[in-house]
Amino acid sequence: MSTRLKTGRLEAFSDGVFAIAITILVLELSVPAVRGDELLDAFLSQWPSYLAYLVTFATIGVAWLMHSAITNYLHGVDTTFVRLNLLLLLLVSFLPFPTALVAEHIDDYEAERVAAVILGINLLLVAVVVSTMWRYAVDHRLVRPDARDEEVQVLTRRLTPSLAGYVAVIVIGYFFPLVAVFGYLAIALLLMVPLGLARDDDLEVPAT
Amino acid sequence: MSTRLKTGRLEAFSDGVFAIAITILVLELSVPAVRGDELLDAFLSQWPSYLAYLVTFATIGVAWLMHSAITNYLHGVDTTFVRLNLLLLLLVSFLPFPTALVAEHIDDYEAERVAAVILGINLLLVAVVVSTMWRYAVDHRLVRPDARDEEVQVLTRRLTPSLAGYVAVIVIGYFFPLVAVFGYLAIALLLMVPLGLARDDDLEVPAT
Amino acid sequence: MSTRLKTGRLEAFSDGVFAIAITILVLELSVPAVRGDELLDAFLSQWPSYLAYLVTFATIGVAWLMHSAITNYLHGVDTTFVRLNLLLLLLVSFLPFPTALVAEHIDDYEAERVAAVILGINLLLVAVVVSTMWRYAVDHRLVRPDARDEEVQVLTRRLTPSLAGYVAVIVIGYFFPLVAVFGYLAIALLLMVPLGLARDDDLEVPAT
Amino acid sequence: MSTRLKTGRLEAFSDGVFAIAITILVLELSVPAVRGDELLDAFLSQWPSYLAYLVTFATIGVAWLMHSAITNYLHGVDTTFVRLNLLLLLLVSFLPFPTALVAEHIDDYEAERVAAVILGINLLLVAVVVSTMWRYAVDHRLVRPDARDEEVQVLTRRLTPSLAGYVAVIVIGYFFPLVAVFGYLAIALLLMVPLGLARDDDLEVPAT
Repeated sequence: MSTRLKTGRLEAFSDGVFAIAITILVLELSVPAVRGDELLDAFLSQWPSYLAYLVTFATIGVAWLMHSAITNYLHGVDTTFVRLNLLLLLLVSFLPFPTALVAEHIDDYEAERVAAVILGINLLLVAVVVSTMWRYAVDHRLVRPDARDEEVQVLTRRLTPSLAGYVAVIVIGYFFPLVAVFGYLAIALLLMVPLGLARDDDLEVPAT
Repeated sequence: MSTRLKTGRLEAFSDGVFAIAITILVLELSVPAVRGDELLDAFLSQWPSYLAYLVTFATIGVAWLMHSAITNYLHGVDTTFVRLNLLLLLLVSFLPFPTALVAEHIDDYEAERVAAVILGINLLLVAVVVSTMWRYAVDHRLVRPDARDEEVQVLTRRLTPSLAGYVAVIVIGYFFPLVAVFGYLAIALLLMVPLGLARDDDLEVPAT
Repeated sequence: MSTRLKTGRLEAFSDGVFAIAITILVLELSVPAVRGDELLDAFLSQWPSYLAYLVTFATIGVAWLMHSAITNYLHGVDTTFVRLNLLLLLLVSFLPFPTALVAEHIDDYEAERVAAVILGINLLLVAVVVSTMWRYAVDHRLVRPDARDEEVQVLTRRLTPSLAGYVAVIVIGYFFPLVAVFGYLAIALLLMVPLGLARDDDLEVPAT
Repeated sequence: MSTRLKTGRLEAFSDGVFAIAITILVLELSVPAVRGDELLDAFLSQWPSYLAYLVTFATIGVAWLMHSAITNYLHGVDTTFVRLNLLLLLLVSFLPFPTALVAEHIDDYEAERVAAVILGINLLLVAVVVSTMWRYAVDHRLVRPDARDEEVQVLTRRLTPSLAGYVAVIVIGYFFPLVAVFGYLAIALLLMVPLGLARDDDLEVPAT
């Protein structure tokens, strides 16, 4: 059929969007306009900006890791999967905007509540779509036949608790926005850890 | 001849431009400067910006899908095709500008008419060049010999109605600009649907 | 030796820089702040911005074509070539800045003279480095042994006249800056044409 | 195990981030708003911006060269290496921010001291993580078995002195910030030189 896509291009295009979204975050950081040795104070007092930067960087990093893990298991993609992938990229490339919302209002409790919830919803949607992509791939036999059942189940389990985690932290964010921002960071870092269970000798020869 | 290009690099360069154009759109969204719980209202009242963002994201996404479908059928490219490809990338990378025009004037009927028509013309030109690239490829036997005639005809048919659709919506845009913006979104989403006709078992083994 | 690089990564990194430089140009275009139907006038009166955009887009496009043509001929790269490549990328990624200089001062004769010469020098340096890379590759036997002598000579000849062209146009730019900007565009478009001499049946089977 | 990553995607994603970080630097350069032939003076008086631009460009360029040299030696990556790689990308993509700090305060001695030290710490951290990645790869047998011991030792030695160099220059930066900025540039250029020891006939056949 004419509409099939090479998996390679889907990966290349997605890698591009992930890489750009994770890199242009820095453009949202504003250079303090103060003069003299006040610059150090001004630089340090912007820490909420760096925190928001770190949260989004870590989340996009995790999304990329998950995306790589998923496509690594596939022996092909169908057209629905490609559209789910575009939806994921839409949500990922939007992330710098709520990140900027959080960074600019962190000293304003009422506004920060709004910003933290908006960021949380964006993060949750990323997690929902990643999870949906994996379930879709499993249900529609896009997964390589040689993948062991237990491996598939491990990845399925991994993707579910993070949804519950985001919902919990979004509710917290409505009352304690700054706690929620640290919570988003914690979720992203926790999601990085379990992916690290592979043993050191568990290498993969580069396919180049 | 010295001027031949690897198809791989044409795809890599194009994927890069598509990925960047689709991701830097977010930089055009402005963070509301209000304080307190007015942020939610300010965030929501910017919906035309998000709509324009979505229109351009969907259109670039469709252009990328079409581009992938086309190059997937080719067994090689010649130098004219490479230049048509550069023209397409010029039009795609320009899209964030009329998108910003639409987003910033959506509460100003007279200006919005102008912006909606300019965006529509940009979208139309993208569709014209994609269509031209495919027709050129068919006419100059760049299409793989093993591609079935009906597949080629399906892709040719798909690309033609969207031209008529854009012209119709641009005319509408002159009188009802907001309707036109939704119309552009509808065209992009419709163009995504027919590409989804492939069956679930219609997989492609990744070539890597 | 430990310092060898895969040609594939040099191409991927270079494609990335070319793609980004060519795409972020659009961020330098400013959205007119006028209201009502004056938007059309404001949009059109910005034509020098679009001209500068087009000049730089075409020049980066040509540089990418030349770069692709050159690396297509190589059977490997050495470490000096990699550094020349970094120098080229430095010059290419700088181009949006003199482009913005030209765009913002086009209604100011004295300033435009300065801007047009600065842009011209940047364009000239790009052409000098591309030419140097090719000569270096020829002199150090990086060119594939199966490349025919006449092909090598064609590419060498192609790269030389553009240097003279840029010098001539830069001098013109000192007196007639707007003429020079059109001249830069003409050079870029002319450089695209000769690369199009290949016959239609002169295809390359995609290596994927 | 489900968490293994193709080396190819790690390289593609990393190349994307390096390419974007090195290219968006130009967006931090501000176009002088002066009119008439004062533009030349205004353009030239911004030289500290160009110097900062050059420092960061050269440093990201070196980091990319080092990264390429390292991954070129690996026959695979494990999950810890992938996370170290994300940490490196975090530091690299942050670099445009301290670069802008330096560029905007270079005529303000007190502020410049702060900015130069912040930039130096960022550069040092990049060097530390690159060095750590290589040591980790050596210690965990990620290096290709056919790599000769002396090659491995050369790369190990190369990465260590730069750490000491950065520490020395950061201390200088606290007293003589402008000297430090030139020092950072010198380190980056010096790090480029030794990688150039390979002989001209030391080619690599492109793997494509």
